[in-house]
Amino acid sequence: MQIPIERDKPIPVARQIQAHLERLIREGLLGDGVKLPATRDLAHSLGVNRATVVLAYEELVAAGWARAHVGQGTFAAAPAGVAARAAARVEPAPIDWSALFSRSARTVRADAGRPRHDVVEPSGGISFAGGAPDSGLFPTDAFRRVLNRVVRDEGASLLQYYPVAGYPPLRRYLSTYLLRFGLEARAEDILIVNGSQQGFDLIARTLVDPGDAVAIEQPTYPRALQVFRAFGAELLPVPWDADGPRVDVFERLLERHAPKLFYCQPSAHNPTGLAMSPERRRGLLDAAARRGMPIIEDGFDPSLAYGARRPVPLKAQDRAGIVIYIGTFSKVLFPGLRIGWLVAPPPVLERLREAKQLADIHTSALIQAAVHRFCEGRLLDRHAVRAARAYGRRRGLLLGALGRWMPEGVTWTEPEAGFSLLLTLPSRLSAAALLPRAAARGVTFTPGTAFFVDGSGDRTLRLSFSALPAARIEEGVHRLADTIRASLKEPARVPREEDLAVPLV
Amino acid sequence: MQIPIERDKPIPVARQIQAHLERLIREGLLGDGVKLPATRDLAHSLGVNRATVVLAYEELVAAGWARAHVGQGTFAAAPAGVAARAAARVEPAPIDWSALFSRSARTVRADAGRPRHDVVEPSGGISFAGGAPDSGLFPTDAFRRVLNRVVRDEGASLLQYYPVAGYPPLRRYLSTYLLRFGLEARAEDILIVNGSQQGFDLIARTLVDPGDAVAIEQPTYPRALQVFRAFGAELLPVPWDADGPRVDVFERLLERHAPKLFYCQPSAHNPTGLAMSPERRRGLLDAAARRGMPIIEDGFDPSLAYGARRPVPLKAQDRAGIVIYIGTFSKVLFPGLRIGWLVAPPPVLERLREAKQLADIHTSALIQAAVHRFCEGRLLDRHAVRAARAYGRRRGLLLGALGRWMPEGVTWTEPEAGFSLLLTLPSRLSAAALLPRAAARGVTFTPGTAFFVDGSGDRTLRLSFSALPAARIEEGVHRLADTIRASLKEPARVPREEDLAVPLV
Repeated sequence: MQIPIERDKPIPVARQIQAHLERLIREGLLGDGVKLPATRDLAHSLGVNRATVVLAYEELVAAGWARAHVGQGTFAAAPAGVAARAAARVEPAPIDWSALFSRSARTVRADAGRPRHDVVEPSGGISFAGGAPDSGLFPTDAFRRVLNRVVRDEGASLLQYYPVAGYPPLRRYLSTYLLRFGLEARAEDILIVNGSQQGFDLIARTLVDPGDAVAIEQPTYPRALQVFRAFGAELLPVPWDADGPRVDVFERLLERHAPKLFYCQPSAHNPTGLAMSPERRRGLLDAAARRGMPIIEDGFDPSLAYGARRPVPLKAQDRAGIVIYIGTFSKVLFPGLRIGWLVAPPPVLERLREAKQLADIHTSALIQAAVHRFCEGRLLDRHAVRAARAYGRRRGLLLGALGRWMPEGVTWTEPEAGFSLLLTLPSRLSAAALLPRAAARGVTFTPGTAFFVDGSGDRTLRLSFSALPAARIEEGVHRLADTIRASLKEPARVPREEDLAVPLV
Repeated sequence: MQIPIERDKPIPVARQIQAHLERLIREGLLGDGVKLPATRDLAHSLGVNRATVVLAYEELVAAGWARAHVGQGTFAAAPAGVAARAAARVEPAPIDWSALFSRSARTVRADAGRPRHDVVEPSGGISFAGGAPDSGLFPTDAFRRVLNRVVRDEGASLLQYYPVAGYPPLRRYLSTYLLRFGLEARAEDILIVNGSQQGFDLIARTLVDPGDAVAIEQPTYPRALQVFRAFGAELLPVPWDADGPRVDVFERLLERHAPKLFYCQPSAHNPTGLAMSPERRRGLLDAAARRGMPIIEDGFDPSLAYGARRPVPLKAQDRAGIVIYIGTFSKVLFPGLRIGWLVAPPPVLERLREAKQLADIHTSALIQAAVHRFCEGRLLDRHAVRAARAYGRRRGLLLGALGRWMPEGVTWTEPEAGFSLLLTLPSRLSAAALLPRAAARGVTFTPGTAFFVDGSGDRTLRLSFSALPAARIEEGVHRLADTIRASLKEPARVPREEDLAVPLV
């Protein structure tokens, strides 16, 4: 530790050391319980007598800023109220940071002020918010063993810098895996990324300039729309109906605005859980191919489908080579590993690789190798079947409960895939206004506006069923239905600004 | 697997299956050795008789497109020449991708055409190129054990989505760790990122708009300058001399161009290995504080220093709160884990967090927790001492050999930290022109132009000593000195375009 000692000062050296350490503890820089350096070491590194350091520590203990444990050393102690004092610490600020922020940062901030879709649930309540898989289903121990073997067998090379494209055996596995769904991609057509989120980011930075028009399905995944907006895109919504994004609107947009690309989730649409009909897929592909415009397909996970047939990715029908496919293991496996992939035609994949290299050099090869071992040993397949069954059961329970409890005028989508459905309230109600009342009854959800590009969707809300225990679903729907019924009985009113901004506590 | 079957066609179904699989194998979509689905499974999923699939497989085997192993199944076989045919496969291309690439992608591509600084060494040769730590020093097995324990103890929560700021115990550890070097940062002032590379990226996107001026030391780390350029910055070089970036040039730039920020590596400068003098540090800090301009400090790793005193980060002297510090574990520990961190004043850290969240949601919490366990158990400290000793020894051997072998007129820096030094050739020579000749003698290096913002530096080259076995250093310098001597004897000539573009084979 560096402590500035001024020997020509009238203040004793022990007092200087004590004051310095006291400030560090007071300001939260030495957190509660952090061990102070051994007196011998600190004396040595400061070039002072050990007794001087001992004295300083004794004074700290006497003043309540540290605790001494015989034989173990001295530990920082934060007296009550220290957190407040740390927060109140005034920093000199010759920089007006807010004047320096880029257009991108300002856009991101503006979007961050929108209703959140991923806020953590209240304790004790029943949450249909969030959109994560159930960590109770994670095959954690199997993964631990696989990870251990991978480090033992290939540790040194996996812990070194690694080529950007990704771990070749994982890309070869994905090539064969995607064939199951009819998606033909060679290993060299695949780029490993940090989850689908980094996929959006790399695609946006490679294809979008500020001011470019970007067509996007509506509703859609909020973090995708935020990324395109952060890179300066003007978003043009293409509304979904029961069969997918409307091709007539899509064609009109292409005609009038010549957008740079179109983003959609054809097979497991978040928030509705719907899949596009074969006709819609053909219509979108044909229109985009005619205009020479790429389609960005967010693939979610094709193994999490609840119908009789597996959904076919749009990319599998892409004879023209215009679709960039984004895949992820965050839905069926572990979101925390941050492993996803892009499939793209060679000229654009090369640029995406270059963008990835500048973004963070490469994705952890160790994690890629562990995921590969896990998949190769058919552990993924076994787990996917188990997970799809569990989520399918919850979906069924949710649909059943909605049918039993919801008042007339409430409608909802029937998810064919994914983790959620979209519910629409009777015309008088607003989901944002409903949320605090629902939370008061112990149930939460995600207001729909977050999924709408143009700020509409106030009557909609998303119910996620993936992470909620099956036993809580009925009760959650019951409470939500009660809240809606109570709200319907009140006199109509226009939602106020505060209601729209209410956090998902 | 999805195979389109047309039953009303005159072509037998077995033949259709065979033709489809043959195409997949021919086009490299079913790679050599990939197991075909079990006949029973494929027959079931296609809704055909099992004998039909068996027949199709037999035909594939007979034609050499597959191998049958009794009791194991049928495996794709790529006959010789298949790779060439796969590459020649013509994709219909209604999209002119090159017309769609963003300004950022075009900038990245232009920079990718510059001489590379990280190309892998020729087999059998002695390489002073690259800039990675020596994987032979990695404490791989200790890390394996730590990783295993972390998954066992906290697996399910570490494999779920995680808050963007990072694993709190790791941030608390870093807070105390940085105090050793005099850098005061509370855990909440720290953001975990995917290595310092993602740090550059997040800072650039948060602070830089296209057309902004950015001041940058010269020479500097190529991937940093490429990131700022990719975000549209106009780079203004501030030249290093033996004491650091020149403050007079810096002040003139600030005066005339009001740059958005200044990027530098004060304590372990890549490529020179130098550290800034205390006067330079004060001069830069004072000038930047007066103009309210942030300094981006790339900290490398303060534990890898070869002098008597540990280098003090610029951030440790930053009373005004204008320095954003970038730290990494890629130098002393494992680059492949991609773990780094940012320390920044609260208003800008908040924006960096938002940018990180949109970039890839968060860095793998599992890896963060494993690194924390590793550090907490003092394994990092023990390893850092060992690594610094090994690198220090190689540095000494390199300096000694240069003194013994280099002809007059060749000069070089004496590294105080880091992994490399910068050598300057006599005025007649060009490093790019020297490289193929050196490679012919079995020694390589990185030509210096990659480190120069303005394309200068042709007489300089970087010698990295970190990953080269100590026993090879003397011989490598000997070969390089011979190459230089031979080149000096030739008639002077202007380097041609091809010399400058020569790849580091």
